[in-house]
Amino acid sequence: MTRFTAYCACEARGRLLPQPFERRALRADDVAIDIAYCGVCHSDVHQVHNDWNNTVYPCVPGHEIVGRVSAVGPAVTRHRVGDRVAVGCFVDSCGECAACRRGEEQHCSAGVTATYNGKDRVSGETTLGGYADRIVVREKFVLRLPEALDAAQAAPLLCAGITVWTPMREHGVGAGSKVAVVGLGGLGHMGVKLAVALGAQVTVITTSPAKVDDARALGAHEVLLSTDPKAMMAAINRFDFILDTIPSKHNVNPYLMLLGTRGVLVVVGAIDLLEPVHGGLLIRNNRKLAGSLIGGLAATQDLLDFCAEHRVLPQCELIAIDTINEAYARLQANDVKYRFVIDMASLARA
Amino acid sequence: MTRFTAYCACEARGRLLPQPFERRALRADDVAIDIAYCGVCHSDVHQVHNDWNNTVYPCVPGHEIVGRVSAVGPAVTRHRVGDRVAVGCFVDSCGECAACRRGEEQHCSAGVTATYNGKDRVSGETTLGGYADRIVVREKFVLRLPEALDAAQAAPLLCAGITVWTPMREHGVGAGSKVAVVGLGGLGHMGVKLAVALGAQVTVITTSPAKVDDARALGAHEVLLSTDPKAMMAAINRFDFILDTIPSKHNVNPYLMLLGTRGVLVVVGAIDLLEPVHGGLLIRNNRKLAGSLIGGLAATQDLLDFCAEHRVLPQCELIAIDTINEAYARLQANDVKYRFVIDMASLARA
Repeated sequence: MTRFTAYCACEARGRLLPQPFERRALRADDVAIDIAYCGVCHSDVHQVHNDWNNTVYPCVPGHEIVGRVSAVGPAVTRHRVGDRVAVGCFVDSCGECAACRRGEEQHCSAGVTATYNGKDRVSGETTLGGYADRIVVREKFVLRLPEALDAAQAAPLLCAGITVWTPMREHGVGAGSKVAVVGLGGLGHMGVKLAVALGAQVTVITTSPAKVDDARALGAHEVLLSTDPKAMMAAINRFDFILDTIPSKHNVNPYLMLLGTRGVLVVVGAIDLLEPVHGGLLIRNNRKLAGSLIGGLAATQDLLDFCAEHRVLPQCELIAIDTINEAYARLQANDVKYRFVIDMASLARA
Repeated sequence: MTRFTAYCACEARGRLLPQPFERRALRADDVAIDIAYCGVCHSDVHQVHNDWNNTVYPCVPGHEIVGRVSAVGPAVTRHRVGDRVAVGCFVDSCGECAACRRGEEQHCSAGVTATYNGKDRVSGETTLGGYADRIVVREKFVLRLPEALDAAQAAPLLCAGITVWTPMREHGVGAGSKVAVVGLGGLGHMGVKLAVALGAQVTVITTSPAKVDDARALGAHEVLLSTDPKAMMAAINRFDFILDTIPSKHNVNPYLMLLGTRGVLVVVGAIDLLEPVHGGLLIRNNRKLAGSLIGGLAATQDLLDFCAEHRVLPQCELIAIDTINEAYARLQANDVKYRFVIDMASLARA
C-alpha cells in the first residue's frame, strides 16, 4: 500500500478538501503513475454532488489524467518507469464480451470499471480518481502520451476529446464533410478543433452572437445563430453530421431539420429525456438521432496520436487544486474557456 | 387524351366512387399501363380523409400498382407493349440533385412527384393514382415485374415492401443479424418475411398474445410480448436492428433499451411527435433512432428481383373495387391480414 493525497468530497454538495488515502500495492499487471495534470469534467461535478444518486463517499473525482510511470508490476510489458502516460474514464473491463473484444471497452456488457466511483474488479473497493498525486491502474488501461503533446493541455482529450472523436470516426467525418457543432463548451470546442483537423467544413450553431468570434478563433468556417429563423430555414438539409453537446434536456427538432439525406445528429451530453422528436423529421431524409459514449482504448490512443501529429489541443485554463471549489462554481456558470486542468504540482503546496 | 375510370373521393371523408377521367396523351418518354392490381395503403386512407391537410380533390389514391404496358411514347426504350410492370409511390423527380443522382429519388431536393396528390412537373396537374384501369407514367419510373412474381401479391411490395427493405439494406441486415419487428400490420409482416429471407434471426415484438401464432406463421423465430416486463428486461441489448412500424405517436424507449452496441431502431410509420426519448439510452451502447422513407427506383427493382428469386410475397386479401369503402373501415380497425389488394378487373363490373 502506498500513501497518497487526494482532494475528495465526503458528502453530497460538500466542498472538496485534501485528505490522505492509500493506493493498493501493485498487482502483477499494474502501473503506478505520478499524476502531473488532471482535467475537470462536468461529470466530476455531477458525481461529487450526487446528481445521479449513486455516489460513494469519500469521492475522489478526475478521469482526464496525465503523468509519468513511477513503478510497474512484474508482469507489465507496455510501460516503463519514466514513461509519459495517460488514463481516461475507465480502468478495467471484463475483456471477454463482444464489446471488449471489439475494443469498445466502454460498452463492456459486464460493466466497465469507472476511473472513480467504480468498483475494483479484484478487491471490490470503490475506485478513486485523478485529483490526486498518484494512481495505480492496470497496464492495459494506461495509454501512451506522445512526446509531441503538451502534458497539461492533453488532459481533456481523455474525456472531452474522445467523447467527440468517437462519433466523428464512426460516422466518417473527413474531408468535405459538412459538420455542425451545437454548444461551445468543453466538448463543443474540441468538436470544432477535431472536425477542422479532419478536413470537414465546420459550422458552429449557437444561441449567442457573443460566441461568433470565439467559434471562428477555434477554426469554425461558419457560425449559425439558432435564434435567427431565416438563417435556420436557409440551412435546412445542409449538414451530414451534427455534434450536439448540449448537456441537458432540449429540443433536437430544429437541428434534425438541418440534416441532409442519411445525416446523423449525435447527442453526447444530454443524459435526460429530450423534448419529443418528430418521427416525420426522421423519416424525411432517412435522418438519424444517435448517442455516443466516450470511446475505447484503441480509439483513445488513436486520438492522442492524431492530436500529436496534427497539433490539436484543447484550450485550457490551468488551476491550482486549492481553487477547485471555485472552479466548480465557475464550471456550473459556464465561465471557462474551455476546460479547467489541475496542475497537480499545486497539491504538494496545498 | 385517353378516357379512363377511377375510384375517387370528392371531399374529405367522402366515400370513394367511380368517375370518368382523362389521362394525358403520351409524352415521348411515357408508358401507358393497363392496371391489373393496386394495393391499398394506410396512406391512401389518410390522403382521402385529408388527415394531412393537403389533399386536392377529386383524389384518386393508389401507389402499389401492377399491370401491363398498353402503349409507349416514341422515345421509350426500357419497356414494350405487353410487358409486366409496376409503379410505386412516385412518378417523377428532378433527376439532377445529389439524391436523384445517387438513386434516392424519394429524397429529391426539388421534391419528388407523388403518384397521387402530387403535381405533374410538366403540366402542373394533380397526379391521379392507381385505383383506376389505366395510368400514364414516365418510363424511368416504371419498374419491371419479374415473371416469377404473382402480379396480385406483388402489388404491396411497391410501398409496404420497399419501406421496410430500404432500412434493412442501409443497415446491413443479413445472415446472423438479430432483428426485431414491432407491429404486425402491412409493413411489419413484410419486415418479418424479408428479414427472414435475408438470413436474420427475427423476433416479433407485440402487445398481443393473440399474434404469437401469426408471427410464427410468417417465419418469425421468436415472439416477445412487450407487456411482459421480465421478458423485456431479459432482452436488453439483444438486437442489432429494430423495425418500428407503429403508425402513430408512441414511446420508443422500451424498444431502444433492447438495442445492443451501435444498434439502430428505424421508425417507418409514425409521422408524429414521439414520446420523449431518453438521451441516456442513446448514449449507452451508441444506439441510434432513425427514420426511413420508402426507397429509390433501383432499390425497388432490387426488391422485386429479390422477392422473385426468394419467393417472398406479401400476404394479401384480394378485393373488388366496389368494396373499397368497407375495406377502408376494416383497415382502420386493423382488420386485415395483411394488405388489401384491389383486383382491377372488378372495375369494369362496378
